Amino acid sequence: MDLFAVLNLDEVSHGLAGLSMFPYFDTAHYVVSVMALREQPGALDVARRSPFACWFSSMLYCFGGGILSGFMMAEAPIAFLSNSTSVLMASVIWYLVFYCPQDVVYSCTTFFPLRLVLTGMKEVTRTWKVLGGVAQAHSKYKDGLLVMIAIGWAKGAGGGLISNFEQLVRGVWKPETNELLKMTYPTKVTLIGAVLFALQQNQYLPVQKQHLMLLYTVFTVVNKTRMMLTGSSSSPFAPIESVVYSTFFAGPSPSSYTTLTTETETLVVKKPSTATKKGIKEAYESLNGAAPGSPSKTAAHKRGKGSPKKAKEQPESTETESNKKSD
Amino acid sequence: MDLFAVLNLDEVSHGLAGLSMFPYFDTAHYVVSVMALREQPGALDVARRSPFACWFSSMLYCFGGGILSGFMMAEAPIAFLSNSTSVLMASVIWYLVFYCPQDVVYSCTTFFPLRLVLTGMKEVTRTWKVLGGVAQAHSKYKDGLLVMIAIGWAKGAGGGLISNFEQLVRGVWKPETNELLKMTYPTKVTLIGAVLFALQQNQYLPVQKQHLMLLYTVFTVVNKTRMMLTGSSSSPFAPIESVVYSTFFAGPSPSSYTTLTTETETLVVKKPSTATKKGIKEAYESLNGAAPGSPSKTAAHKRGKGSPKKAKEQPESTETESNKKSD
Amino acid sequence: MDLFAVLNLDEVSHGLAGLSMFPYFDTAHYVVSVMALREQPGALDVARRSPFACWFSSMLYCFGGGILSGFMMAEAPIAFLSNSTSVLMASVIWYLVFYCPQDVVYSCTTFFPLRLVLTGMKEVTRTWKVLGGVAQAHSKYKDGLLVMIAIGWAKGAGGGLISNFEQLVRGVWKPETNELLKMTYPTKVTLIGAVLFALQQNQYLPVQKQHLMLLYTVFTVVNKTRMMLTGSSSSPFAPIESVVYSTFFAGPSPSSYTTLTTETETLVVKKPSTATKKGIKEAYESLNGAAPGSPSKTAAHKRGKGSPKKAKEQPESTETESNKKSD
Repeated sequence: MDLFAVLNLDEVSHGLAGLSMFPYFDTAHYVVSVMALREQPGALDVARRSPFACWFSSMLYCFGGGILSGFMMAEAPIAFLSNSTSVLMASVIWYLVFYCPQDVVYSCTTFFPLRLVLTGMKEVTRTWKVLGGVAQAHSKYKDGLLVMIAIGWAKGAGGGLISNFEQLVRGVWKPETNELLKMTYPTKVTLIGAVLFALQQNQYLPVQKQHLMLLYTVFTVVNKTRMMLTGSSSSPFAPIESVVYSTFFAGPSPSSYTTLTTETETLVVKKPSTATKKGIKEAYESLNGAAPGSPSKTAAHKRGKGSPKKAKEQPESTETESNKKSD
Repeated sequence: MDLFAVLNLDEVSHGLAGLSMFPYFDTAHYVVSVMALREQPGALDVARRSPFACWFSSMLYCFGGGILSGFMMAEAPIAFLSNSTSVLMASVIWYLVFYCPQDVVYSCTTFFPLRLVLTGMKEVTRTWKVLGGVAQAHSKYKDGLLVMIAIGWAKGAGGGLISNFEQLVRGVWKPETNELLKMTYPTKVTLIGAVLFALQQNQYLPVQKQHLMLLYTVFTVVNKTRMMLTGSSSSPFAPIESVVYSTFFAGPSPSSYTTLTTETETLVVKKPSTATKKGIKEAYESLNGAAPGSPSKTAAHKRGKGSPKKAKEQPESTETESNKKSD
Repeated sequence: MDLFAVLNLDEVSHGLAGLSMFPYFDTAHYVVSVMALREQPGALDVARRSPFACWFSSMLYCFGGGILSGFMMAEAPIAFLSNSTSVLMASVIWYLVFYCPQDVVYSCTTFFPLRLVLTGMKEVTRTWKVLGGVAQAHSKYKDGLLVMIAIGWAKGAGGGLISNFEQLVRGVWKPETNELLKMTYPTKVTLIGAVLFALQQNQYLPVQKQHLMLLYTVFTVVNKTRMMLTGSSSSPFAPIESVVYSTFFAGPSPSSYTTLTTETETLVVKKPSTATKKGIKEAYESLNGAAPGSPSKTAAHKRGKGSPKKAKEQPESTETESNKKSD
């Protein structure tokens, strides 16, 4: 790729591809994951009532990707426990975040600039996890593009995808919501990464692996940082999703498809009727994780915008409100 | 088997055994499965809110058997994704049934004669799936009659058996009901098939495999067709179940077993007391998927009987009402 | 170990290690497990409505450990079905306990001395199951101490750990409680056993395997017998847990950690303030499976104490009340 050569990015991308996740990036991943757990409603209560359930929940946050991809590939989901160093590191971080005397560690990590750096580093691990999943699937299913996407996605966003069962460990059960019904930003960006890396692995993309790694890593880090700085939860994929949705999926609706379909077909692209427009807008909003027509949430976003201080207090406001994980 | 030779059915059964499920029968299976999903309460709403969750749910309907048997045999549940052709075919059908402009495809497939043919073809795939499950289990557990039955059953009726978790994908959670508590007709007939094929595999049945395949396929197709034509949901196993139940399982009841057991023992076969009779009837009804003493349902059955038009509108009325799948 | 030689226990421990669980101890395990299921609220109702769901539930009680460890190690969870003799034995016991004419079998087994013997024998099987799990994990993960503990625990206390899903089979769903949030005595004692046997396997404990087996078996049998005889549910680990809890986990609380942490730090060991003391006490009680501040339960314990007759009627009162299993 010429552009990379021109910009002298070849070396950068090779350097990145040779980067070891252990120990600094892994540590950042564990810290941010355990903090995300601690900020779930009721998590502190569980931490007091049952340290063991809290520990197990933390492990699901930290190693959820490996566990889920293990189940899907019929490889031992328990295998993560055989890497004693990682488990010990994650456990120490869990202990410090939840039970540290005078809550020193949690107070420090919530300091906005530190949190920003840690979250950025966590985003870097996503590239490695997705890539690991794609490679793992490729070793078993040579031509299985879909399997590679699925395993890459599971490995990179496992904690979020198993959130229903992680919550169950803490005695919380929210069947009405899951990451498939309302994908959060981390789940979406991981899915896109899995698709890209799987296409690259099958040589459908005219780009080298380390270049793609650089591009994807920069994209995830920059985008997450932007979201944290502006306190916004608006997804960069929203316009694309909106177009795709209104083109392909604005078909029959539960109540009105018999009367509206013809209308929708002809009108939706040019000038949708108010009713249809509203319906699509609502559906599209719910696709983006926001409750349809919730004025309070919109207000919260406005208040949050451009206010890093607010963002520090509620850095992942939407995800916390809808009880989703940051991973 | 002489009877087969006399009736010239040997050739027919050999022809059937050599039949390929791909592509026509598989297509019929996908169409009927996705239609069954679409007819679930709330499914259209999910299709609008989250096309991805809807797609995933459809895949669970179409490939549920392979996924469940994968989990049970510690083989990759994700393996179905490696067969790109099947997944693509199922996905296209999912798209057409849910989002086709002007809802053309769904309107066509609900046309009663077409639906009858498709459902009949889907029943044929059941034989192949059960047989595949039994063979798969046999290759690992030579003498495991019970394993063969379990895997054959899981492969043939997987979609129904995992219905609780399929519903969870759509944000629905109904713990009070599952296919083990209230078996529907498809689950029962698949269990019987699994038992027969497992016995044949272990040479406990004096019948050739292709003859059994013919008999079982004819039985399932004829019976399903009869049920659709008459709009009846009465199971052909009801009399046998009733006898087995009252002989073996009419033992101690929760409230009255201390006072009634002696009575039941002596009376149940000859002339049960009214109370015992009612208790058995209720339990037996609930075994057959009907809520005990629901007059509205009984009335619905009466209205439905002999009325193919009604049956077209609600071809699998009981299953739809109790939120069960057709598979 | 000299002490063993002096007390002539070497031969005893060798004899114990050579003991076969089949058939007597296994039978006792099945009887006690199926009785524990029957004593669950609503179980008899399920047994009448759906004998199949009841049978499946019983199998989860009897073989839950193997199923759970199968899932965790990516070995076929269905494998237990290939041991026809065990399944047949468990099924016969299930039938006799639930449906025996005039309820003869259940009435006999609830006879206190017989139940005491059966429960003691069931406790013996725990040692073998934990040891089997540790060995199974060791064969795959040579240095995986944590994997050995996890699999040993899962194998020994599987029925309890999967209780949420076992209840789901019976149409019961209690997400607010699970064995990780509130460990019952059997789960705790199995965890301790798994830790000890895994340490021994890795030669961190200066004790021979058969000596450890003897010690652990004697401890579990004696302790369970004591609990049944006194009708008490007080755990022998309570004092240790209390110390560990107040030392390590009495950190930040949901409401008051900002004001109380300093206080707690200095006071908790010497003389805790009333508020902190109460908080710790409640948390500690809930750790031990008792609802915080439930006077009726405390009263029940007092009534139960030293009254074997009462204990016979409600031998595992706390576990039954909180809908937990005896395993």
